[in-house]
Amino acid sequence: MIKQAAAFLRERDNFDILTHDFPDGDTLGSGFALCIALQSIGKKARVITTGVPKDFIFLQEGIVPMSFDTQTVVSVDVADEKLLGKNREAYAGKIDLCIDHHRTNVIQAPLRLVDAEAAANCEILYYLLPELGAELTRGVRNNLYTGIATDTGCFRYTNTTAKTLRTAAALVELGCDTAYINKVMFETKTKKRMALEREILDTMEYCCGDRCAIIAATLDIQNRVGVCDGELEGLASIPRQIEGVEIGITMREKEPGVFKVSVRTDETRVNAATFCSQFGGGGHAAAAGCTVKGTLEQAKAQLEKAAGEALWTA
Amino acid sequence: MIKQAAAFLRERDNFDILTHDFPDGDTLGSGFALCIALQSIGKKARVITTGVPKDFIFLQEGIVPMSFDTQTVVSVDVADEKLLGKNREAYAGKIDLCIDHHRTNVIQAPLRLVDAEAAANCEILYYLLPELGAELTRGVRNNLYTGIATDTGCFRYTNTTAKTLRTAAALVELGCDTAYINKVMFETKTKKRMALEREILDTMEYCCGDRCAIIAATLDIQNRVGVCDGELEGLASIPRQIEGVEIGITMREKEPGVFKVSVRTDETRVNAATFCSQFGGGGHAAAAGCTVKGTLEQAKAQLEKAAGEALWTA
Repeated sequence: MIKQAAAFLRERDNFDILTHDFPDGDTLGSGFALCIALQSIGKKARVITTGVPKDFIFLQEGIVPMSFDTQTVVSVDVADEKLLGKNREAYAGKIDLCIDHHRTNVIQAPLRLVDAEAAANCEILYYLLPELGAELTRGVRNNLYTGIATDTGCFRYTNTTAKTLRTAAALVELGCDTAYINKVMFETKTKKRMALEREILDTMEYCCGDRCAIIAATLDIQNRVGVCDGELEGLASIPRQIEGVEIGITMREKEPGVFKVSVRTDETRVNAATFCSQFGGGGHAAAAGCTVKGTLEQAKAQLEKAAGEALWTA
Repeated sequence: MIKQAAAFLRERDNFDILTHDFPDGDTLGSGFALCIALQSIGKKARVITTGVPKDFIFLQEGIVPMSFDTQTVVSVDVADEKLLGKNREAYAGKIDLCIDHHRTNVIQAPLRLVDAEAAANCEILYYLLPELGAELTRGVRNNLYTGIATDTGCFRYTNTTAKTLRTAAALVELGCDTAYINKVMFETKTKKRMALEREILDTMEYCCGDRCAIIAATLDIQNRVGVCDGELEGLASIPRQIEGVEIGITMREKEPGVFKVSVRTDETRVNAATFCSQFGGGGHAAAAGCTVKGTLEQAKAQLEKAAGEALWTA
C-alpha cells in the first residue's frame, strides 16, 4: 500500500492536504511533513487546517505558500469527514487518498493507506516519504518526531510499539530538535493553565472509600481563571492518576446546570462506557463521556451513586 | 571494556551488588537485572540497598535470596562511595567493579565500566549481560526498561539518544511490561502527593514581570499534608514549566527558618549555579541549589532580589 500511495502522489500534483479539526501534533506533523516533502520534489501543495495552535507554528517552517487549482486531495490522521470541521463542506466526498492510523477510519477514498498498528500517523509517513523520493529534511523530521511523540505521550502510552521507538531512534539519529520539541509539548504550561489546575485540585473530592475521585471545572472557576475551551483539555487524566482510584471523574460545566462529564477507569474492573451509558453517553472501556444536568451537588450526587454501584458490582 | 567486565564477572562468584542511597529506578533496575543474570548463570549474588521503595518491589521478582561470604563487590549507578548511604562504611574501598554512567564518577575501582554517553546505567547493562552468557529474561528486561525509562523521564529528557530509543525498542520487541511500568512510574500519584501539589500551587507567586515563579513547601504545609521527605521530590520542576518563566524557584522548609532552595533555569539566559553561588550553594547551569535562612517572607525577598538582578544582567 505504501508503494501504491507513493506512486499516486508522484503521478499527481496540486495537493490540498486535509488535517482534522482541533488539530494536534500528529495531524499537523503529518500534514506539514507531507507538504514539505511534496514541495521538495517539485509539486504544488498546501495544508488545509482549521487553525494552527501557537505551539505548532514552528512546524510550518520551510513551507512555501502556494496558490493553485486543487487537483488532488489527501487527508492525514482524519478518521471521518465529520472531523474536518469548517472544511467539511468544501471537501466532503472529494478525498483521493486517505492516510490514517485510526482503526475506526470510515473515509471512503479511492486510495486508502490506513495502518491501525501505527502509534501515530507520522509513523506511516516516515516510511512513505522516502518512497516518494523526498529527502527527510530537518523540517520533515521535526514534524514526524512531533507527531509520534505527541500521539504516544512521549512513548508512554500503550500504543507505543518497538517499531515506534525504532522510528523515533532513526529520526533522532538523523537529527531533530527533540530538546525543544519535548520541552514545548510536554514541559510547558501556560500561567492560566497552572492557575486552572490549582483551582481544580481544590475541588478534588474522594468517595467510595477513595476508589473514586471527582474534580469539577465549574463556570465560576472557568470565568475566574479566564480559560477558553482548549485550555480545559487534559484535565480528565488528573483524578485517575491517584493511587487506588479506580474511577476518575472530571466535570466541566458547559452552561449553568449542564455538566460535560469525562470518566476514566482501569478498564479491567469498571467499564467507563457502561458507566456513561446510564447517563446517555458512551465511549471506550477506559475512557468515556456523558452529560449530566442539575446543580453541581445534584450532578455530583448522581455520579457518586453510579460510582458506588459500579464498584459494588465490579 | 564490556568484554573485560563480562570476563571478570564470569570468573568471580559471591557478588554483593551495591546501589545508591535514595534508590531510583536506574540503580535498582541495574542491580536487580545484574543479580538475576548472575544467578541465572549459576553464580551467588544479592543486591545491597538502603531500602526498596514500594513502586520498585515488583522488580525483585525471580531473585533468589542467598547467603554467602562476599567475594566480589560491584557497584551500579553509584558515582561516589559517599552515595552508598548506610552501606558506605562496610564497602568503602572494597568495590571491585564499578558500572556507571555518571560523567562525575570518582570511584577508584580496579575495574571501571563507566560510559557517560549512556542515558541510563541500564543501557550499559543491556549490552553487558548477553556477554555474560545470560539470557535477557522478562524479569531482566523489565528491570532494564524501568531504569532507562525513569532516567530519561520516559525518553523526554535531553540525555535520550538514538541508542537509548533503539535499546528500548529492542527490549519492547523481546517483550516487557511497559504498560504497567509506565503507569506506575509516570502516571500514578499518591493521595498525599496530590494534596501536596494542591497546597503548593496555592503558594505560587510570580515576580520580575512573570519571568520568575516561586513555590514554597513550608513546614506548615508539610505537617498539614503529612508528607515525608521522599514525597517532596520532583516539586522543583513545577515553576519552571510555566510558559515565560526563566527562573523557577522551589523553597522547602527543612526546619523553622531554614529553606532548602532548588533553582531551575533555562541555562542559556540565567545560570542556576551562579545564581545559587551567591547563597553559598552550587550545581549545574540549569539546576542548582542553596540554603537560605530567615522567615518565609525574608527568604523569598532575598531570592526575588537575586532573580531581578540575574534577569537584569541576562
